[in-house]
Amino acid sequence: MTSTTMPMLETYPAEINLDRAKLAATIDAIVACAAACTACADACLSEKSVADLTKCIRTNMDCADVCAATARVLSRHTGYDANISRTLLETCATVCKSCGDECGSHAGMHEHCRICAEACRACEQACRDLLATIS
Amino acid sequence: MTSTTMPMLETYPAEINLDRAKLAATIDAIVACAAACTACADACLSEKSVADLTKCIRTNMDCADVCAATARVLSRHTGYDANISRTLLETCATVCKSCGDECGSHAGMHEHCRICAEACRACEQACRDLLATIS
Amino acid sequence: MTSTTMPMLETYPAEINLDRAKLAATIDAIVACAAACTACADACLSEKSVADLTKCIRTNMDCADVCAATARVLSRHTGYDANISRTLLETCATVCKSCGDECGSHAGMHEHCRICAEACRACEQACRDLLATIS
Amino acid sequence: MTSTTMPMLETYPAEINLDRAKLAATIDAIVACAAACTACADACLSEKSVADLTKCIRTNMDCADVCAATARVLSRHTGYDANISRTLLETCATVCKSCGDECGSHAGMHEHCRICAEACRACEQACRDLLATIS
Repeated sequence: MTSTTMPMLETYPAEINLDRAKLAATIDAIVACAAACTACADACLSEKSVADLTKCIRTNMDCADVCAATARVLSRHTGYDANISRTLLETCATVCKSCGDECGSHAGMHEHCRICAEACRACEQACRDLLATIS
Repeated sequence: MTSTTMPMLETYPAEINLDRAKLAATIDAIVACAAACTACADACLSEKSVADLTKCIRTNMDCADVCAATARVLSRHTGYDANISRTLLETCATVCKSCGDECGSHAGMHEHCRICAEACRACEQACRDLLATIS
Repeated sequence: MTSTTMPMLETYPAEINLDRAKLAATIDAIVACAAACTACADACLSEKSVADLTKCIRTNMDCADVCAATARVLSRHTGYDANISRTLLETCATVCKSCGDECGSHAGMHEHCRICAEACRACEQACRDLLATIS
Repeated sequence: MTSTTMPMLETYPAEINLDRAKLAATIDAIVACAAACTACADACLSEKSVADLTKCIRTNMDCADVCAATARVLSRHTGYDANISRTLLETCATVCKSCGDECGSHAGMHEHCRICAEACRACEQACRDLLATIS
């Protein structure tokens, strides 16, 4: 199953106040980050060194929750409010930065943290790129 | 079933960097707001005037999603990061203000919008009160 | 902030195919259970014995997610489909039973697990009570 | 950003009781379905014929919520409980069937409903395929 984000944006029946390709890329990066963080929290939970990974698990859970909410809000265009998109993108970028740093600090030990850190950084960047286009 | 927010905070086995009573009140206000917004979106959907309520439905859905994520993050204290709590509380207050204004504008016509607007305003205020205590 | 579940049900503008008082009690029990499970997962994460609580943390997270989805679905009445309510209530009861058993097994050691187990059992019972009324 | 589902499964540090390739395909189908349903609910909300699409919007929202919870639960392997995976996959398939039928009935009129119906059917099938492997 490939992503339907772009086809769904293309068939939206009214105007969208953001560049559709950039928006689709951002939504996909956020959805991928949420999935990676949920998986990473669980992988950390199964490590023998779980006691050293509790902050990582917590940050992963926060990041998954914030990304999930952000992806949903960005997928709605009816009654668009730039303020809400902006504040949520900033928050999402902040949380992804935090989670990317935390997972990044375990990347040498745990491959799942390395992959998750990459997903967080890609997501943070995508959020900032989209933010830059919102006036 | 009464809220277990305060008992859960009281039995948390480590330090919490925020005032527990204020934190519990905020979490409860956010959870109540999320529930009201989910219900209000659906009530609007069943109004004959649904075509005039599409922005309200959308804002309700955004508010429910952002409140759900915020309540979860605030319920975690392991590896506490003041930056994340702060940015999320600000975002939650912004979205609640938006939804409270939108629902408030239909409050004279629809009781569910009136109740939901109140829940949004109480939640916005609770978020701002807690924010003021985070240095 | 008290629950707005019952007032929201009372102001829903169309028919509801379930007993409103029983439905409100169930939604409130599910919402309380979701909040308790989110908090219990984090409290377990901060216990020194976290390595012995990984299954509990995982079950708490599952239960929080399933309860959150169930509360939302039950809060919608537009285009009601008894099949969906029924299957979701059964699933929610199953997951709450599992989580109640798991948290219950740590109740002697951790007060947060004891409180959470109670919330899970109350939620399981509420789901089964509502299920019994859906033909 | 491509899906990290398979790489995350491959780096999970313990046993997984399901076929990893089939599990990854199912999680990806569920995540794609959740995203399509969130977008379809909003697209329906912006149609001039929104009053004829209220059941579709509601079913889309239910399907998005149930898929989101199911994807998260399937992404966890710590303390695996076949009962929970099974009941949730059955529920997810039921809700996807319902949403696929509802969106399918508007597919001739609205491209977003056609795409969403396809995502729902692919997700339903993926859930049933995975279910067949759980003893």
